[in-house]
Amino acid sequence: IISKLPQTGTTIFTTMSALAAELGAINLSQGFPDYDCPAELKELVSQAMQHGHNQYAPMAGLMSLREVIADKTEKLYGAVYDPETEITVTAGGTQAIYTAISTVVNPNDEVIIFEPAYDAYAPAVRMMGGLVKSLQLEPPDYRINWEMVKRLITNRTRMIILNSPHNPTATMLRKEDIDQLISIINSRDIFILSDEVYEHLIFDGRTHESMARYAELRDRSFIVASLGKTFHVTGWKLGYCIAPAYLMREFRKIHQFLVFSVNTPMQFAAAEYLKNEEHYNYLPGFFQQKRDHFRAGLEQSRFKLLPCEGSYFQSAFYDAISDEKDTDFVIRLTREFGVAAIPTSAFYSKGTDFKVIRFCFAKTQETLDKAVDRLIKV
Amino acid sequence: IISKLPQTGTTIFTTMSALAAELGAINLSQGFPDYDCPAELKELVSQAMQHGHNQYAPMAGLMSLREVIADKTEKLYGAVYDPETEITVTAGGTQAIYTAISTVVNPNDEVIIFEPAYDAYAPAVRMMGGLVKSLQLEPPDYRINWEMVKRLITNRTRMIILNSPHNPTATMLRKEDIDQLISIINSRDIFILSDEVYEHLIFDGRTHESMARYAELRDRSFIVASLGKTFHVTGWKLGYCIAPAYLMREFRKIHQFLVFSVNTPMQFAAAEYLKNEEHYNYLPGFFQQKRDHFRAGLEQSRFKLLPCEGSYFQSAFYDAISDEKDTDFVIRLTREFGVAAIPTSAFYSKGTDFKVIRFCFAKTQETLDKAVDRLIKV
Ligand SMILES: CSCCC(=O)C(=O)O
Ligand SMILES: CSCCC(=O)C(=O)O
Repeated sequence: IISKLPQTGTTIFTTMSALAAELGAINLSQGFPDYDCPAELKELVSQAMQHGHNQYAPMAGLMSLREVIADKTEKLYGAVYDPETEITVTAGGTQAIYTAISTVVNPNDEVIIFEPAYDAYAPAVRMMGGLVKSLQLEPPDYRINWEMVKRLITNRTRMIILNSPHNPTATMLRKEDIDQLISIINSRDIFILSDEVYEHLIFDGRTHESMARYAELRDRSFIVASLGKTFHVTGWKLGYCIAPAYLMREFRKIHQFLVFSVNTPMQFAAAEYLKNEEHYNYLPGFFQQKRDHFRAGLEQSRFKLLPCEGSYFQSAFYDAISDEKDTDFVIRLTREFGVAAIPTSAFYSKGTDFKVIRFCFAKTQETLDKAVDRLIKV
Repeated sequence: IISKLPQTGTTIFTTMSALAAELGAINLSQGFPDYDCPAELKELVSQAMQHGHNQYAPMAGLMSLREVIADKTEKLYGAVYDPETEITVTAGGTQAIYTAISTVVNPNDEVIIFEPAYDAYAPAVRMMGGLVKSLQLEPPDYRINWEMVKRLITNRTRMIILNSPHNPTATMLRKEDIDQLISIINSRDIFILSDEVYEHLIFDGRTHESMARYAELRDRSFIVASLGKTFHVTGWKLGYCIAPAYLMREFRKIHQFLVFSVNTPMQFAAAEYLKNEEHYNYLPGFFQQKRDHFRAGLEQSRFKLLPCEGSYFQSAFYDAISDEKDTDFVIRLTREFGVAAIPTSAFYSKGTDFKVIRFCFAKTQETLDKAVDRLIKV
């Protein structure tokens, strides 16, 4: 059989989590919390099941959940989306990303991706026969050079994929980026896929530049969010996509045959839990404390810390420690020092190695302390 | 934006369920139970959440669940599948179907579909640039004419999609069908997608002719099953796909970017619950009783019943009642008599109308009795 994705192996997340488990190492590789979600949230799922909400949800998601999502989006970003026609609940952010790309990318369409990039974007583009045009960003600041973006654009450019707060680099788009983006796509027929799954993980009082804030961007954007990230339940596979009705109509045509609908009791729980703003407003403070604690620890090590503006990832140069390739270094780090991390080269299509690795700090203070103890020995 | 699925509107299931809800009609349209799932199963989900199983499951599914699936498949069909490389847990049967089709269908590949057909197959083929070659089966027996299948096959035929027990017709493949199928594909490079989500809903002591039973078919088949159907929890979106390793490897490459993984607490619950054979061995008797009860009721009506060998659907001719189109008739039936059903023409790409409608009998005795009371007035 001819492979649809010949370049694809097992994701680095699966590989590193498996190695960490095998060796009993502290797993700061794959992005998920090592502490549990709020008890109230679990209780709401149990209640929904008890109340018999165990059959198909509506294809686009429970209306009560879509309504809270609309409220939240309006409150946070000043954008009015119609829950009836512009919001769809998905089986996690990943399914929303795959579906949005499937909706607009046709054979030979070009899609601009900024690297390092989350590894789900490019394969989805290729599955649709699209061509990935990637622009490599470089540490330590990973800023987008918009002049270079302009040069990448052709009349076949169909979509630009953005991700802020950014995985793995922890950078965030600024107002200048938005201005440039608007001026570039203004006269062109280009869609945006905006992966905003870390929207609530933002530090030092920064503003999350959601596409939803800008009318000129909103009208052509698929915005992807993750309740799994927001509620510390990555295993519940619950996310959503918002987009203008003319795009969402086509998105749903695919969604309905790709998965049809999403877990009903989890949707009931999320609809209730999301009503209370405090259930996400505390997140910047919660994760900033973890970031600061982890960074303070690593300052004592030979790792050189990169900035961390948002997300729950901290990147670090290890060039003062070793000149190994980052893929080799993380394996040795796991084996010899008992801490698993992700090599940033895994996020570059060409495997470019800037001697940077990524740690996930969505962990308890205890885990972070133990990890730091080990990392300062490196 | 150019639609990827220009022929696609909202599914008939969504339309009819919405109409039933709006009018307060008895909903025998969309296929799902109106009674709750076993309490023990819900309890197992609550426990899994309590135990902190709320983060990403492994990409291919929990190993404990895959192992029980392997055991069950061996016990029921005598087929040995390796849980490590040949079984993947999916977000419902629909996601397994979409992913399997995505795995092997390339632009201009031809896929043979027997109509009436579940409405998710053809759009998935078209999304991959494939061409649907459909063969219309006719009531009341809906048998496959294998001579006609032979004539449909070309050197571009890539896949044949089978579904037994069959939705909507409630027919089942027989050993003669299997023999014909084997002889046809024997010398050819054709894959099979076998939708077996109703594998446990089989009546009158019939044998479910799973592709898993036959080495010559197993080695080229994606078999799709649904724990949602088996455990009366269609809203939990839990299914699986089994296929030989060389196919499953490619399936997983897509699965990992399409959804990455599937609801963790539900997988823990299913792994435990599926261990007990009695949790599915009672299903033929359970549904046969419902089928017989519903049929006995409808014998008093002017509907003419078609055979029902398996699945939880009962089809009926209404030609003695009306010569309306089936799509009009079901709407009038819902409005005037308070019972929603599915028009079988919705399962034919050309909308062929044989004056047959489908009722779902996965309902309590009370619901079935009420529905019968109304249907005998028609
Ligand atoms: C879907 S597994 C990857 C989780 C994640 O977002 C990451 O580690 O980058
Ligand atoms: C996914 S909605 C349709 C449910 C079903 O299998 C049917 O009614 O045919």
